[in-house]
Amino acid sequence: MQNFSFHAPTKFVFGTDALEKVGQELTELGVKKVLIHFGGGSALKNGSFDRVKASLQKSSIDFVELGGVRPNPEVSLVREGIKLARKEKVDLVLAVGGGSVIDSSKAIAGGFYYEGDVWDFYQTKKRPQKFLPVATVLTIPAAGSEGSASNVISNDELGIKNSYSSDYLRPKVSFLDPRLTFSLPPYQTAAGITDMYAHVLERFFSASENTPVTDNIAIALFKTLKSTAHRVLENPEDYKARATIEWTGMLCHNGIAGCGREEDWTSHALEHELSAFDTKITHGAGLAVIFPAWMRYVYKENPERFAYYGEQIFGNSRTEDLEADARLAIEQTQAFFISLGMPKNLEDLGVHEEDIESLLPNLMISRGESFGSFKKLSKDDAREIYKLAL
Amino acid sequence: MQNFSFHAPTKFVFGTDALEKVGQELTELGVKKVLIHFGGGSALKNGSFDRVKASLQKSSIDFVELGGVRPNPEVSLVREGIKLARKEKVDLVLAVGGGSVIDSSKAIAGGFYYEGDVWDFYQTKKRPQKFLPVATVLTIPAAGSEGSASNVISNDELGIKNSYSSDYLRPKVSFLDPRLTFSLPPYQTAAGITDMYAHVLERFFSASENTPVTDNIAIALFKTLKSTAHRVLENPEDYKARATIEWTGMLCHNGIAGCGREEDWTSHALEHELSAFDTKITHGAGLAVIFPAWMRYVYKENPERFAYYGEQIFGNSRTEDLEADARLAIEQTQAFFISLGMPKNLEDLGVHEEDIESLLPNLMISRGESFGSFKKLSKDDAREIYKLAL
Repeated sequence: MQNFSFHAPTKFVFGTDALEKVGQELTELGVKKVLIHFGGGSALKNGSFDRVKASLQKSSIDFVELGGVRPNPEVSLVREGIKLARKEKVDLVLAVGGGSVIDSSKAIAGGFYYEGDVWDFYQTKKRPQKFLPVATVLTIPAAGSEGSASNVISNDELGIKNSYSSDYLRPKVSFLDPRLTFSLPPYQTAAGITDMYAHVLERFFSASENTPVTDNIAIALFKTLKSTAHRVLENPEDYKARATIEWTGMLCHNGIAGCGREEDWTSHALEHELSAFDTKITHGAGLAVIFPAWMRYVYKENPERFAYYGEQIFGNSRTEDLEADARLAIEQTQAFFISLGMPKNLEDLGVHEEDIESLLPNLMISRGESFGSFKKLSKDDAREIYKLAL
Repeated sequence: MQNFSFHAPTKFVFGTDALEKVGQELTELGVKKVLIHFGGGSALKNGSFDRVKASLQKSSIDFVELGGVRPNPEVSLVREGIKLARKEKVDLVLAVGGGSVIDSSKAIAGGFYYEGDVWDFYQTKKRPQKFLPVATVLTIPAAGSEGSASNVISNDELGIKNSYSSDYLRPKVSFLDPRLTFSLPPYQTAAGITDMYAHVLERFFSASENTPVTDNIAIALFKTLKSTAHRVLENPEDYKARATIEWTGMLCHNGIAGCGREEDWTSHALEHELSAFDTKITHGAGLAVIFPAWMRYVYKENPERFAYYGEQIFGNSRTEDLEADARLAIEQTQAFFISLGMPKNLEDLGVHEEDIESLLPNLMISRGESFGSFKKLSKDDAREIYKLAL
């Protein structure tokens, strides 16, 4: 178990009455005026927007609004949000939406006190010295951004998608009412579950030796997703299943499944280039394609780890052929993603062999010449993984 | 899944270099002067005390010391600590020790700003309005107090042991170096593991329906304790095993294993009366005796839950006799505690049938006439459970 520090101070208010507590919780934080940041679709349709505003008004908290966050949120709206937040002197950004809205809100919070351009944080090692606080009302469980330290922003002009992390980016408080997710379409639900599952895979498969308690927690999360995913797809208004998925999504990415371990994040890096290449690609769908390809490329580094994973998650028996055991677990992982309705390969995502070369330069910028933990990889390795995913 | 809120903001600094970071972390919190609170034994012997002082000095943080915390910490030393902390104008209580030292530190923190007697918080519904912050250097993993919201204090004069909880009692930062636990004697190690296991049992067995993700996390923690306990007893200097136990102990009681569930806490209440009756009784040893007795008394309320637990933790196969399956899981739980060196019954703890009646009045004061979740219990039920434990 490696030395680590773990700090996840977000308060979670979870359940059917969560949104009615927004005003009261923000009042306890001393908040007087917020910027409500949202996308446009789900927050308006599912009524969350009105419930949040009613709760703020009841607590006499003033607000201004900025909508229009798109999937794979873009830096120009972040810049606009920073200007508005400064002009209106808000003291918190309240995200009402999914991971994209939360990430855009975190980006505004990081840029609020910074004199330069906010994109600096995504392109250099420079980090904000001071942050505006963020709160979230989650409408799409997937990214875990409601409890995590990270945010991912796209820059269309440069064709780059990049991220940075800081414990100061963890929301002060996140409000989760699983009923808000009843109306999520199956594809988005499935992509969200795939993203959650991938967040645990990135931690489970690294160069670290086994770490019993962290491994067992990872296994608990994999198993929960596996046993609940089809229930929620078959019955989108099953409260218990939706609640299970929503809370699991937070746990998959708040860091508890990685304590004491190195983490890998190669598959996320390879996927970010896909959705920077075509912003219509849903992150979870990209991961469903990339992760199995990465696994096939690297598993020989430590087939025992994959065989153990197969035993624990798919109930596989061990055979005398360790590599075959590992390959079986990889096939089963991809079959699980496909069973949810996720794409099988890059062609399904509209990415072709001739596009691969154009993905590599930005990957080198964001991850450097050598990256990954389970296996150290280079630009050539990345090309091969993309090819395996075709 | 019931509505809930979860807020566990403690920062954990974990590993071999944790104690060298005390000064730097407290400086980040703006701390200038601390009260170091400790017991006397392990903190001095294992060198943690010197490492902490060196780190404070390096960061120019001033300190005063108050030692002498005993197991089942007593309110008179808490009162002394409050006086000293006020006189010296410290701005944080730094606990160096196990659960008793941390609980005594939390009690000082809760009483610091209060004009009345600190015992009020343990006897009435009155709660502190303001708290001094607490940090901890953990030397005995067991109680989970390094990450939890609760503290338990004894009052010898009244012969009562009582507790209260508040998220404000969660330490700001906790420093965990597993090597500090190498010298823990087997009995204390085993009692600590039993306490951790019991913290999850109290959450797993309640009136709530099953809660897949929270249940799976509970199962992950049970399994980790079960697979690591004997390793650490056989090889007390196995770093990985000690680290696993220490981190698991925190997770067993920070609340993550109870999200969305009612909790029970009857066995803890019954045990508190034992160690108030005889302060030489180690809390975990008392739990090893009380918990199986409680289980035998209540399991018929929901034998399915016990059978499921037996399946998951002990790998039992289901039979056609659900109640027999449940009883088997209870026997296995007690056998696990005994295999660690824990006592089997109240006689082993020096508590006899004629003592039982004297335990009941204080139990009624602390828990009221009706208590428990898995099964609602009364004073008569409590008497029967103590008798079953003889």
